[in-house]
Amino acid sequence: MTINPPSIEGAVCPVPLSHNDQIVMGHGSGGRMTQDLIRKVFQPYFSNPALDANNDFAIVNVNNAKRIAISTDAHIVSPIFFPGGDIGRLAICGTVNDVAMSGADPVAITASFIIEEGFPTADLARIANSMAIAAKEANVFIAAGDTKVVEKGKADGIFISTTGIGFIPEGVNIGGKNAVAGDAVIISGSMGDHGMAVLAARGDLGLEMQINSDVAPLNSMIHQLVHEIKEIHVLRDPTRGGLATTLNEIANQSSVNITVDETSIPVKSSVASACELLGFDPLYVANEGKLIVIVPEKLAPRTIEILHRFDYGKEAALIGTVNREPKSRVLLRTQIGSNRILDVMAGEMLPRIC
Amino acid sequence: MTINPPSIEGAVCPVPLSHNDQIVMGHGSGGRMTQDLIRKVFQPYFSNPALDANNDFAIVNVNNAKRIAISTDAHIVSPIFFPGGDIGRLAICGTVNDVAMSGADPVAITASFIIEEGFPTADLARIANSMAIAAKEANVFIAAGDTKVVEKGKADGIFISTTGIGFIPEGVNIGGKNAVAGDAVIISGSMGDHGMAVLAARGDLGLEMQINSDVAPLNSMIHQLVHEIKEIHVLRDPTRGGLATTLNEIANQSSVNITVDETSIPVKSSVASACELLGFDPLYVANEGKLIVIVPEKLAPRTIEILHRFDYGKEAALIGTVNREPKSRVLLRTQIGSNRILDVMAGEMLPRIC
Repeated sequence: MTINPPSIEGAVCPVPLSHNDQIVMGHGSGGRMTQDLIRKVFQPYFSNPALDANNDFAIVNVNNAKRIAISTDAHIVSPIFFPGGDIGRLAICGTVNDVAMSGADPVAITASFIIEEGFPTADLARIANSMAIAAKEANVFIAAGDTKVVEKGKADGIFISTTGIGFIPEGVNIGGKNAVAGDAVIISGSMGDHGMAVLAARGDLGLEMQINSDVAPLNSMIHQLVHEIKEIHVLRDPTRGGLATTLNEIANQSSVNITVDETSIPVKSSVASACELLGFDPLYVANEGKLIVIVPEKLAPRTIEILHRFDYGKEAALIGTVNREPKSRVLLRTQIGSNRILDVMAGEMLPRIC
Repeated sequence: MTINPPSIEGAVCPVPLSHNDQIVMGHGSGGRMTQDLIRKVFQPYFSNPALDANNDFAIVNVNNAKRIAISTDAHIVSPIFFPGGDIGRLAICGTVNDVAMSGADPVAITASFIIEEGFPTADLARIANSMAIAAKEANVFIAAGDTKVVEKGKADGIFISTTGIGFIPEGVNIGGKNAVAGDAVIISGSMGDHGMAVLAARGDLGLEMQINSDVAPLNSMIHQLVHEIKEIHVLRDPTRGGLATTLNEIANQSSVNITVDETSIPVKSSVASACELLGFDPLYVANEGKLIVIVPEKLAPRTIEILHRFDYGKEAALIGTVNREPKSRVLLRTQIGSNRILDVMAGEMLPRIC
């Protein structure tokens, strides 16, 4: 199986880069070679007044907001390019989404790169391009960055840590501890796409089907939700550990039971087949462009209607309810009608998926 | 030469950790083992309401500030423990200082960890402890974090990326482009301590002397400066590339000449000896607890007087002036009275120093 380039449109592609160029230790020195790298590879894609000021900090205007949401993630996905995205798109979307889960509008992102000596400069430019496209789609700017280089064999190609900040609208109070009995549990689309896409891209599992990652920024969809529905209790993206682990986190934080209906959880047939073949449960597989929304039951139809307006929410579905007992437990009503406990993932099912 | 433990006082030391414990891939899964790691190793040191809320984001109150300063850094220092500090103290101080260079008061830090499988859990706890102590000294809280684990051989022990935010007081306008002819150039202390401390800690250079890193949070000293001196033009910490590279950055951004006097630049005798032995120039060696201050010449005595009040500014000295020509150039007036160009560092002199 071949690894396809990320299916991202609209490359900015600036400086012509020789494909023989490689990152060397000097690119992480903080001296002239670092300045060259920034000027040739990063600035053409990331240029904005905050970054171009070339200070050790960037300034972001608060615009009268009262509360900042902040979130950070390290990205170590392998392979770095996979169908539907790459480590760059993942680094932007992962952090944009985590900030947006507070109900905030993400504004600025910082990116720090740890690069292995010998990494192809062309791949770095491709990743920067993909970050720029994702940032543009999410309407955030890359405010500050840092590049470090380690010796060959001391890292695995490239790692990217991103941190995002956003402003929380007044009156919004969304968090994992706010689920209450009587709430509905909604997801914005199919489960398991990202994890299985990355796994398939590794090419060592004999999977012939192509699965596209769902990696996407969800903030404009969330903005609309927060604007139209005042009583959102919880927003969370089911990333590492998948839907099952994320629902358990919420059940724990809110001391409630969450019961979901297996037949109502959308799973793409390609993902279902791949999971069956490999013995994975799609409910434990990571997503990078999906959203759990918990709202009072009476607001569920309206919530789903709003999600359906967006490309990233077209398959949104009501999948379950929040109940009083058994506290801090997630139950799955299976296809044959029995209930079973859906526990937290214990160890590591799919390493380096994000 | 033995590597000494960091000379940091006041360990919080909570959960007894077996020295046989190691990080395994499951600790980065996002599932139960990640939760265990957070609860046992990070939370005892980092606990605060924002982090303990266990959401994917943290909330920071703006308190009527108008502007946020934000900065990020990846830390890949080797060895991770060195005299005077470790990667944890470095990760907090490096980012606190970058935020403070805007004149802001740093408030919150995020930390993302990339850990190699097999890394000792006891070392991770020691690093977390050191981060907690540095954060306490700097009066910032660790608002959000992330942990990823890569396979043995795919990283080098531990890498830590930190991002900091702070609030810029109204009326403050400090930045690398603000130096003008007639300004004085002041540094807060001796040059080259951090780089030579890390190099000596590697133990493979036959250096017998112990050199302590200067790694320290400078924000309370900067707070006082900003409070008492309204006309600070530039603040910058001479980290990677050292004083020479940092002054060149400022000369470039401000289109000015900076001329410094070699005899007035403090260099500790141990650092000077080590540099001479190894053929390094201390003006190109990284510092992690020093500050360049550029102010109108008439304010220089007052600036130095303020710096002298602080432990981290006791050796502050006037080292040079800002002039109109030759633009974007840094000149060094040598001990014998001649002027030579002090250029940007070209390649990499001391890799993995921060």
